[in-house]
Amino acid sequence: MEKFYPLSDIVSLLQRYARGELSPTQLVERIHVEIQHDPDHVWITPLPLESLKYYASQVEAKGMAELPLYGIPFAIKDNIDLAGVPTTAACPAFAYTPSRSATVVRRLMDAGAIPIGKTNLDQFATGLNGTRSPYGACRNAFNRDYISGGSSSGSAVAVAKGQVCFSLGTDTAGSGRVPAAFNNLIGYKPTKGWLSAHGLVPACRSLDTISIFALTAADAARILEVSAGYDAEDIYSRQREEYNFDFGAVSHFRFAVPRRQQLQFFGNLESERLFYEAVASMHTLGGEAIEIDFEPFLEAARLLYEGPWIAERYTAIQSFFESQGDQIIAPIREIISAAKQYSAADAFKGYDQLRRIKQQADQIWQRVDCLLSPTAGTIYSVQAMQQDPIRLNTHLGYYTNFMNLLDYTAVATPAGFQHNGLPFGISLVAPAHQDMPLLHLAHRLQALYSLPLGATGIALPKTHFPDVLQSSQIRIAVCG
Amino acid sequence: MEKFYPLSDIVSLLQRYARGELSPTQLVERIHVEIQHDPDHVWITPLPLESLKYYASQVEAKGMAELPLYGIPFAIKDNIDLAGVPTTAACPAFAYTPSRSATVVRRLMDAGAIPIGKTNLDQFATGLNGTRSPYGACRNAFNRDYISGGSSSGSAVAVAKGQVCFSLGTDTAGSGRVPAAFNNLIGYKPTKGWLSAHGLVPACRSLDTISIFALTAADAARILEVSAGYDAEDIYSRQREEYNFDFGAVSHFRFAVPRRQQLQFFGNLESERLFYEAVASMHTLGGEAIEIDFEPFLEAARLLYEGPWIAERYTAIQSFFESQGDQIIAPIREIISAAKQYSAADAFKGYDQLRRIKQQADQIWQRVDCLLSPTAGTIYSVQAMQQDPIRLNTHLGYYTNFMNLLDYTAVATPAGFQHNGLPFGISLVAPAHQDMPLLHLAHRLQALYSLPLGATGIALPKTHFPDVLQSSQIRIAVCG
Repeated sequence: MEKFYPLSDIVSLLQRYARGELSPTQLVERIHVEIQHDPDHVWITPLPLESLKYYASQVEAKGMAELPLYGIPFAIKDNIDLAGVPTTAACPAFAYTPSRSATVVRRLMDAGAIPIGKTNLDQFATGLNGTRSPYGACRNAFNRDYISGGSSSGSAVAVAKGQVCFSLGTDTAGSGRVPAAFNNLIGYKPTKGWLSAHGLVPACRSLDTISIFALTAADAARILEVSAGYDAEDIYSRQREEYNFDFGAVSHFRFAVPRRQQLQFFGNLESERLFYEAVASMHTLGGEAIEIDFEPFLEAARLLYEGPWIAERYTAIQSFFESQGDQIIAPIREIISAAKQYSAADAFKGYDQLRRIKQQADQIWQRVDCLLSPTAGTIYSVQAMQQDPIRLNTHLGYYTNFMNLLDYTAVATPAGFQHNGLPFGISLVAPAHQDMPLLHLAHRLQALYSLPLGATGIALPKTHFPDVLQSSQIRIAVCG
Repeated sequence: MEKFYPLSDIVSLLQRYARGELSPTQLVERIHVEIQHDPDHVWITPLPLESLKYYASQVEAKGMAELPLYGIPFAIKDNIDLAGVPTTAACPAFAYTPSRSATVVRRLMDAGAIPIGKTNLDQFATGLNGTRSPYGACRNAFNRDYISGGSSSGSAVAVAKGQVCFSLGTDTAGSGRVPAAFNNLIGYKPTKGWLSAHGLVPACRSLDTISIFALTAADAARILEVSAGYDAEDIYSRQREEYNFDFGAVSHFRFAVPRRQQLQFFGNLESERLFYEAVASMHTLGGEAIEIDFEPFLEAARLLYEGPWIAERYTAIQSFFESQGDQIIAPIREIISAAKQYSAADAFKGYDQLRRIKQQADQIWQRVDCLLSPTAGTIYSVQAMQQDPIRLNTHLGYYTNFMNLLDYTAVATPAGFQHNGLPFGISLVAPAHQDMPLLHLAHRLQALYSLPLGATGIALPKTHFPDVLQSSQIRIAVCG
């Protein structure tokens, strides 16, 4: 391993810059060489060297003092706009070249981060496996016979390989979490509305959010602080509210675990073992497990693809679907075609049904601070996925599809390895606006597990959770 | 006028009870006589004398000490359940007899209030005029040639005539405000979700709320405190949040007024004059007028009947509509039939459109504490309404249709009389959860105008705004 490649976490890289061991220009030159060879279909549009050097010179001119993400390279899922570079959504016929960057991309670049390129995805962000792309099936960073997970496939693998320090994905049904689990990463799905969706190709507009892949929960928290904020250009943007209390930092907290018979591992005994090890790890951190009825969550999850929300996917690309539907790959075209069977009355009934389910599901928050579940019950080979593309994809969303429908926030966190060397991940879940305690808890879990970072082989650095949390804690509500 | 009939406000009646001038039994006997003769089609099911006396005896047995609404008679719009009495929604073929009362009705009765009967309405609460009922067109309390307003027609007129102290209406598009304006009453539309909708025949479930007709804003606040609260049986129920600050009690506040060219009085110069008198009255109370662009509000209003929300009305009575649609009166059947032209994709697009509009409309709250508008631009005779039932009804909702779509709260408040003796009303509007400051401001406006109560001829009593507000103010948020 070279001194600075593959990349480690943000703090480590900033320290190298500070010590003068390396410059952003040197780093992007090295990354550029590395990503030219891309047998695993990670990238759709890697930026040309002259662009990378231009961005690097820009941040070098400003200097480290004012830039919290000085020279930090990142990848962008190719359904998020970067000015001047095509956005394909993994559908060449759909591609357009935006003149403005997405709000989140702009904020990151304003903070000194350097975009390296646009990454592969399941077309129109519809899928959880990473094989649904005309740019090739993205391969798992640990074993290229296995799926990367999706839809944010390339963004996850680029971070796992240490090609970038972090990346942007999107997460409607689990696209920001499933690939994190399959590549030993933090996959942070923020509270809906915290990160602007301006400049994002919508999948299901009321449920979409940009998500963050990082090597550590502390990095995810840093990236959040730079990229979040109300944006009048996003109709689903909303103001951050204070969290209730930092259950991620205390010696006793309560977490929900689904009843054993409601857990699904689809025959993977390794995942089951690793999940119960994660429950034990939570105990070690001071967590008290409370068994809950998971059925309302599963019922909400089923609504997403077996109900009228399919019609929201259709509205997102309606004119393209009607004019060039034959350019959409078969499984996705079939899924979206189902939209037409739903009436407005079905939509309103579905919305009522969701309200009822949410009311039931929300009851657990009176008893617990967060929920622990597997991120995915199992993983599949690329071959198996291609042979049974719809059913196996449904399995992958068993623990993730409900999240945005129920307005929860989640952090997918590494939780060990199967004997075959593939990673396993768990998800920490909490109500909207409880993101910081959740990231804090993920930070402590990472420290406890002390797994190497992504697929880089680099040891987890000893870092403190950033003080963004503390500054946020200054705002306290006193009620009597 | 008798000593105790027609009725005045709640405090006056409680004082009579306390002085021993009158008992609940005596009062209900008197009311029962009065409402037997009902030429104005106020009541659908007045309760039999034995029921009234039974309820009176129950509250007498408990005594005044524990019952904040001891012996206070009230009316119930006939789309809200009272156990053992048919709920018709003004459609005899639809009627059913519930075994349980609506949550709000039960809470009021637990507090000592006595239900007098079920009142007339525009069928399925679809209409703002009061003529759309097979039980007869409800007549205005001031001039029976004129409409009462609707859909909560009977509930408004029963209060205006002093037959009851207050009443329950419902308000989806303006049904709890327009009849208040036409009968010189307070028509309070609470923040959606504060009053449980359990036991209410839905009109448009995501937008419905029970509303309160009262002779004074202070009474409305008292009734609110007794009847509100989270209810797990209502999927749209929500917890009350604190209001920002009591702009209703201060010597300087800011209120929005639509641009003059965006105001519509439909040729009624009297209404226009009275509206600008109301603006002047707000100045007298310390208000600073800020002219705003009313277009986002009007755009939201149009969505309600010219967009997919019609399909939500259809879902509310779908099985009845399909099996016995011929039992639904013509204008309402036509309105609801339009539901079938909307797809689920239309519904999601409509929802997006609403989000965009709300984002624009909400911008005014950075500049003002509340909004002032007419409640209705004009009033029509029963004859005129029957000759042009759809178009004139649309005029009546010009200032009201947007309210629940935008998640605002509103208090319709009396604001003087036209030269023909018919009342005019204004609406005070604020974001969700700002109900108490709004009611407080309405209280001060009432004191300033000093109009007689409803159509009773009784002078406005000098009362203080109830201390529910003060107790609420103890909860303060300190943020630094």
